[in-house]
Order: sequence, then structure tokens, then C-alpha cells
Amino acid sequence: MSKLRVAVIGAKGRIGSEAVRAVSAADDLELVAALGRGDRLETLAESGAQVVVELTHPDSVMANLEYCVGQGIHAVVGTTGWTDDRLARLGTALDAAPGTGVLIAPNFSIGAVLTMAFAQQAARWFESVEVVELHHPNKADAPSGTATRTAQLIAAARAAAGSPPQPDATVTALDGARGADVDGVPVHSVRLRGLLAHQEVLLGGEGETLTIRHDSLHHSSFMPGVLLGVRRVVHTPGLTFGLEHFLDLG
Amino acid sequence: MSKLRVAVIGAKGRIGSEAVRAVSAADDLELVAALGRGDRLETLAESGAQVVVELTHPDSVMANLEYCVGQGIHAVVGTTGWTDDRLARLGTALDAAPGTGVLIAPNFSIGAVLTMAFAQQAARWFESVEVVELHHPNKADAPSGTATRTAQLIAAARAAAGSPPQPDATVTALDGARGADVDGVPVHSVRLRGLLAHQEVLLGGEGETLTIRHDSLHHSSFMPGVLLGVRRVVHTPGLTFGLEHFLDLG
Amino acid sequence: MSKLRVAVIGAKGRIGSEAVRAVSAADDLELVAALGRGDRLETLAESGAQVVVELTHPDSVMANLEYCVGQGIHAVVGTTGWTDDRLARLGTALDAAPGTGVLIAPNFSIGAVLTMAFAQQAARWFESVEVVELHHPNKADAPSGTATRTAQLIAAARAAAGSPPQPDATVTALDGARGADVDGVPVHSVRLRGLLAHQEVLLGGEGETLTIRHDSLHHSSFMPGVLLGVRRVVHTPGLTFGLEHFLDLG
Amino acid sequence: MSKLRVAVIGAKGRIGSEAVRAVSAADDLELVAALGRGDRLETLAESGAQVVVELTHPDSVMANLEYCVGQGIHAVVGTTGWTDDRLARLGTALDAAPGTGVLIAPNFSIGAVLTMAFAQQAARWFESVEVVELHHPNKADAPSGTATRTAQLIAAARAAAGSPPQPDATVTALDGARGADVDGVPVHSVRLRGLLAHQEVLLGGEGETLTIRHDSLHHSSFMPGVLLGVRRVVHTPGLTFGLEHFLDLG
Repeated sequence: MSKLRVAVIGAKGRIGSEAVRAVSAADDLELVAALGRGDRLETLAESGAQVVVELTHPDSVMANLEYCVGQGIHAVVGTTGWTDDRLARLGTALDAAPGTGVLIAPNFSIGAVLTMAFAQQAARWFESVEVVELHHPNKADAPSGTATRTAQLIAAARAAAGSPPQPDATVTALDGARGADVDGVPVHSVRLRGLLAHQEVLLGGEGETLTIRHDSLHHSSFMPGVLLGVRRVVHTPGLTFGLEHFLDLG
Repeated sequence: MSKLRVAVIGAKGRIGSEAVRAVSAADDLELVAALGRGDRLETLAESGAQVVVELTHPDSVMANLEYCVGQGIHAVVGTTGWTDDRLARLGTALDAAPGTGVLIAPNFSIGAVLTMAFAQQAARWFESVEVVELHHPNKADAPSGTATRTAQLIAAARAAAGSPPQPDATVTALDGARGADVDGVPVHSVRLRGLLAHQEVLLGGEGETLTIRHDSLHHSSFMPGVLLGVRRVVHTPGLTFGLEHFLDLG
Repeated sequence: MSKLRVAVIGAKGRIGSEAVRAVSAADDLELVAALGRGDRLETLAESGAQVVVELTHPDSVMANLEYCVGQGIHAVVGTTGWTDDRLARLGTALDAAPGTGVLIAPNFSIGAVLTMAFAQQAARWFESVEVVELHHPNKADAPSGTATRTAQLIAAARAAAGSPPQPDATVTALDGARGADVDGVPVHSVRLRGLLAHQEVLLGGEGETLTIRHDSLHHSSFMPGVLLGVRRVVHTPGLTFGLEHFLDLG
Repeated sequence: MSKLRVAVIGAKGRIGSEAVRAVSAADDLELVAALGRGDRLETLAESGAQVVVELTHPDSVMANLEYCVGQGIHAVVGTTGWTDDRLARLGTALDAAPGTGVLIAPNFSIGAVLTMAFAQQAARWFESVEVVELHHPNKADAPSGTATRTAQLIAAARAAAGSPPQPDATVTALDGARGADVDGVPVHSVRLRGLLAHQEVLLGGEGETLTIRHDSLHHSSFMPGVLLGVRRVVHTPGLTFGLEHFLDLG
């Protein structure tokens, strides 16, 4: 079997260099180019890349992708900052390049993506749902973006199913005890030396609870998701938003 | 809105009496009959029951269901002992009663059913998967039936996806340390005073783990699943095997 | 071996009736009296009780204990409402009855008492400590009294050891995300249908975390502590405040 | 305040180089020497070291310590292989050097040491105790040495308290399901990609459970224990075996 030819743009960053390592280590992939800031995009076509892993910056991602799509090179994108406008512009480019696929993934951790997907599926079947996220104490924001997103997805799933408000008989509370309210879902942020990034979704019904917990113990946890994206995007023309669409859920 | 008329057969057993209580407490359901051993099945039709909750014994369940289906009464069945033969016989009865639905649920706990469903969905995306189940120390079998079933479903999902064997460099082990082997999935059984029934599915990949945990803290945990079955079976003609089909997964 | 003769006052309440059951079931104890409201205290001496389990009300506990101590009957007390004044009055009574012991226990759950003891011992050895308590949603206060007490004990242990403030780089936070502040220890309160009473103390240092978790799954969890108190108080003259003193810690 | 002068022997190994880093980073310590294989021991005295961190090999540790004790240099020792014989020999050396202290620590992780200490304290107060240890799948032995040691300490504490055997009604079991038997304490070993080193002690009694969990997420977790040893050993003449003696427990 011939190997899939892969290039990385943004190859000098922390995630980018992990991606270079992961692509190089995969038996079915061949790293054909690794571009840093200032390198010429033409290298991508010259190297024969079939897929590009795009890990740069919102300022450069559009130009990078328009080049790739124009060349019929598939792309797996970790760079953020996608507005409706930008997505529309990318869609137009893709319409003109049938057969070319782009995956934009706000989160490459398969565990985090599954946690959100399962939380959404389970949310309507339990009376109570809360989110506890735990991170190292150097984190600047609370709750984490992932926890806020998870709570929003849970709230939307419950709203769509017509779930009643969560039961809560609290009368007397210390300020903050019941967490932050994200669309009606309490979210609690723990900051603890020794931790990296962890999240727990707790669901409770009569006589039982279901807990979905994701522990990210090392930054390399993004790599299996990146490689999965690379392997699938070549068979998935058009725009895919979110790694969950490549996980054969349901 | 008129209430759905529900009867319980096997109403004197522990689960049966919980079902009687739960149906009576539900705003949208009306308990119209509660039969114990020796009571006449004809009472079901006479009471105007639209749905029967069947919680008896493998010896009596076939006769009970053939009566119900013959009368166009839907059924939600917790009684076990279903062979291919028995299922075929029930299918024939249902063919003759279009519009009538039967749900057979080996497990009515929504949390347990979701745990199995999520474990199956996640199994192929992680290198390692193990199951830890924890029960009270009066339990006679290890692993629990649910844990064995969960491990089998995990193994089947991995086989279907072509997953390689799990990594395990163990060279020296005390007997039993690595758990029981269920189709290649290690299963560990903890027995602890104070517990009821708990199960954890641990999945691990590069730099991250995903844990799905179900805690059953009271026998009433079966009731939301029974009520869900009652409400859905009236709109689901034919035979449905497993509560997961009523949970809108995927 | 002759059995220890035990009486229960407040025997009709929920905890009291559990105590009656537990004393009756213990091989080394004999239940000689079970008093409810309005019953004569003299019954205690007439029954030959050596130890009384006092589970009544702050309004009656002083009179009950003064009677017992006056008769040389040991006591295990679960009733709350102890002020310095009341403790002093009880101390005076005990001074006049050398050899008689009284245990006052704000919490009879051995697991909860050990959780607090271990949290105190561990608190100074980790940079970060937070408390998460999880209860059923019918609870009126947040945090729970036990969690507040645990956080206060942790804070006191850290102050005594000269621990610096906990690291926390949070700059942007949703209201409540970082929990309630109890003497500098963040406390988070989860309310979930299906739970009873649970508490987790999380401690984190460089590269590691230590978690102490107590799960109370049934109200009977108080009984082993009550029985332990009964057996030990007869050998422990004077006033003992807190079950931890009977647990041979350290 | 003048800084404590510290040397590291075995400074080139993985743990040794972490120790060099940690000593250098501590405000109250000064790294005065870092010896690798073949370096002259005399450097230690010449550098003015007051404490040596010994992280070499069973073959060299005795000679290294005899040199240090002879010079009145305190030592913190992570090297293993201590027999009664060797300990006696070291004791004799220390008798001749009053005021000099040596700490031998089989485990420098404060979290692991506290887990063992708490498990011992709690073991007799619960009917059931089991150990679950979880490690990366490259580990060669199962259970881990720490888990085996923990189970042995639990078993010894229960034997000393006259605890009855654990309740276990298992009649039918798959081979291995109930774990390995270490002195009557079941130990379960999970091997999962993504994990480092984790251990859970589960204790259960009537209506409640207590769980003590230690997560080691990075090899740097040993360093706070090493630094604690360095600071304390200078005030603790003679031989101390085990970091728990420096943790002010009880």
C-alpha cells in the first residue's frame, strides 16, 4: 500500500511539532513537508502533499486553505477563529473543488469530543446534570472553554427534548457554592497543582447516576485525533466541522 | 389528555411492586390492574389496559405475552430467558397483530444501557479498554452479568473495526491481578460492603483516558426505564429488543 | 462473656430506630430499654443500662445526660447544639462522677470522620486543596455542614503549618465557577438526583494528586460509629468530643 | 538565612537530574555538587555539602553512605536493596556519628506515602478493603510494588486489630475476576494507555465507602518528598526508614 503524503503547516509550534512527530511515526503516512512561518506555500504542491495539517493562526489560515483547496489538497485544520463569514468563504472555495475535503476541528482530543457527544445523548434522560472541570492552577479562565461548550450542548439537548428545569431545593447557599450557571447547567471549576486538564459530566436520575469523565494527561492526546482526521478527510469531500462527524457515532 | 391505562403482571415481586408504585405516581399513566400469581389474565382486557408491564418468570412469560398480543395490548417485558426460538414464536404472534408493540428489556436502568451504548461507540477509538465492576459482597457471581455483557459488546465493536489486541507488557503477575479475560477485555470485580451495583468502563489512548461510570444506588433506578418503555411501546409496533432503541442515540 | 446493657433514648426517630435495630443485632450488646418522648428516665436505671445512646433534641439532652451521669450510666450522644456553656455544665457533672464517660459525636459516620482527619493530616503537604460535596437535590443548604467543617479544618491545619495561599491564576471567571470560599479553601456543591451524601477532598502537588472520597449510600452508615462509641465509652471516663478520638489514629 | 548546602550523587539518572533541578530551584537550598558515576566522593566534603541526596545503585550505596556518615554529612537515600544486614551495618556507622541523620525512603511521593498511611489507619474500621492500581501498559509486573506493599500493610493492620475475614459470597467466578490475593486483600491491576501510575484503596462498611486515591501524573512527583527529606534529615539524627516519619501524622 502506498503511503498517504502529508504536510504540516505551523510545524514549529508546540502542537505542530507534535504533529510532525506523529505523522512521521505512522506506518501509513509519509511526511513530505513541514512549513514554518515565512516558508513558501508552493512547497506543498511541489512536495506532492495529498493532505495538509493546518496549525497556524487565524490571520493566515484562510490564505493557506484557499491555496490548498485550489490545488486539490485536502486539509485538517486546528486553527481557530471561524466566523460564519469565513466558513462561507471556505465553502465557496470548496464548491469549486469537488472531491476536496476540509475538516475543521475545534478539539482534536477524541476523549473530549466523545465526552461532549455522550453528554448530549444522555442529557435528556436524567433529571440532573452538572459539569465539574479540573485544571492546573495556571489557567486564566474559569470555566474552561470545553466545559462551557459542554454545558451549552447539554442545555440545548434538554431544551430540544422539553426537559423541565433541574431540581434544586437550595435555600441557603454561600456565594459560589452551586457553581457557575451556563444556560441552567451548573459548572464547577477546580484548580489544582499536579493536574493538566480533566472534565466530568455528572448525570443523575432516580436511584442512579452516570458519570462521563475525560482526563487529558499529556499534550500528545491531540495526535490520534489529528491522524484520524488525515485518514478520513481524503474520503470526505466538502466541509466537515467537528471531529465527531468522523467517529461513526450512533 | 387522557391517561394511558397500564397493568402490571408480577405485581407482588420486589420489582413488580416498585412498578406499581411508579405507574401510580406518574401523572400521565393510570394503573388499572395489578396481577399476582394465580390471578386471571382476563382481568387485563376487562380493566381496559392498553399496556402491560410483564415482570414474572420465564415459565409464564410466553403465555402472558401471547394473551396480551392476541388482545392488542402492548407489553413492556423485564422477564428474562429469551431464546431464538421463543423470540421467533413471539414474532409470529406479533405478525398477526399489526400495530401492537412489545419491548423486551434485559436491563431497564437507563444509566446501565447508556454505559453499554457509549462503551461500544468509544471502544474502537482507544488502544486500551478495561471494565471494573463493584458490587455488595453478597453477590454470588463475578463478574456481574452486566459487566460480562459490556465487555462482550466492547470486544465485538473492536473486532468489527479491526482493532489490534490491547497493549500489555505484563511479564510477572500474581494470579488474578490482571482480572478475568472476556473476549480479550480485562474485567475486574470488586466486592465491598456498603455498595449496591456500580460499573466503570476505562478507555485509554495516547495522553488521555475516558471513563464511563454507572452507579446504581437504589433498586428504584429501574423505574424511569420502565415508564419510558410504557410511553414509547404504544407507538412502536412489532418487537423491540433492548431499551437502547428507545433512547434516540446517535 | 456477659453482654453490655444498652438503652436508647429517642428510640422512635429515624436514627433512633436504626440504633435500636443495630444494638439488638450486635452479639456483644443487649438492648434493655428504648425510650420515646414522655417515657420516664427512671426506666434507664431500673433496666440496669450501663450505656445510653442519646438521640433526642437540644431541649432535652442536658436533663437526660445529667440523669445518666448522676446514675453512673455512660452515654453516647448524637444530639447537637453544644455550646461552651453546656459543655462546661456537663463537665462539672462528670467531675462528680469519676469513672463515667460521655462521648458527644457531631458525626457518627466513621468514613466522614476519617475523611476529615485525613484531610487535616494531608492539607499542609500539598499546594492546592479543594472540596467537592455532592448531595441529593432536596438539600436546603450549600455547602453541607460537613463540607464547611472539613474546609475549616483544612484551613486551620494549613495556617498552623504556615502554608502559603493556594496558587490560582484565574483572571476571567463566571460568577460561582471557582466555588465558595471557606477560609481560603474552595468548596463546590453538586446537587444531583440519585445521590445521597458524598464528599471529595482533592489535594494537589507537583506531579501528583491525592483524593479522599466518602460516599454515604444509606442512613445505616451511622450505626457502626454508634456501636463503636458504645463499646469504647465504658472504658473512657470523662468527656470525649468527636468520634475521631476513638479511632486510634496516628 | 544561610542556605542549606546540598549535593546529589547519581545526578545523571532520570530521578537524579530531576533532583538537581529541584534543589537548584529551591530558595532555601544551594546545590554544591552533582556527582555521576566515577566522580570522587571526596568532592562532597570539599564542596561543604551538609546533606547528600543518594540516588545511585544497591552496589554503591553502602560505600557512599559510609563515606557521608564518616564525614558527618546527612543523607537522603532513594536507592533500594536494603536488607536487615545492610541496615545493621549502616546503624553501626551512625552510632559512631551522633548528630548525623540518614533517611531511607522506598517512596518519595508524599501522596503515595500518605495513601499507605491512611489505608493502614482506616483498614480496621471497615468490613471490606480492596486495592485497584492502574498503570501504563508498558509495566512489566502486576500488581505494582506499591500496591502489594499497601495490601500487606492493610492486612497487617487488620490482623493486629483482630478483624474478621472480608465478606465475599462469590460462588461462581471467572478466573481472575476477583483479583490477586495479597494476604487476604484483593488487588486488581488495570493497564491502560495514557495512564502513568495511579492507586485506589476502597474501604466499605455498612451504608458507606471511603476511597483513597493517589494519581501520579508526572515523574516530578517525587521531588517535594526529596526536598522535605533534605530539610528534615538535618534535624533528625540516626536512621529513619520511610518518609511517613517526617509527615507529622497522627
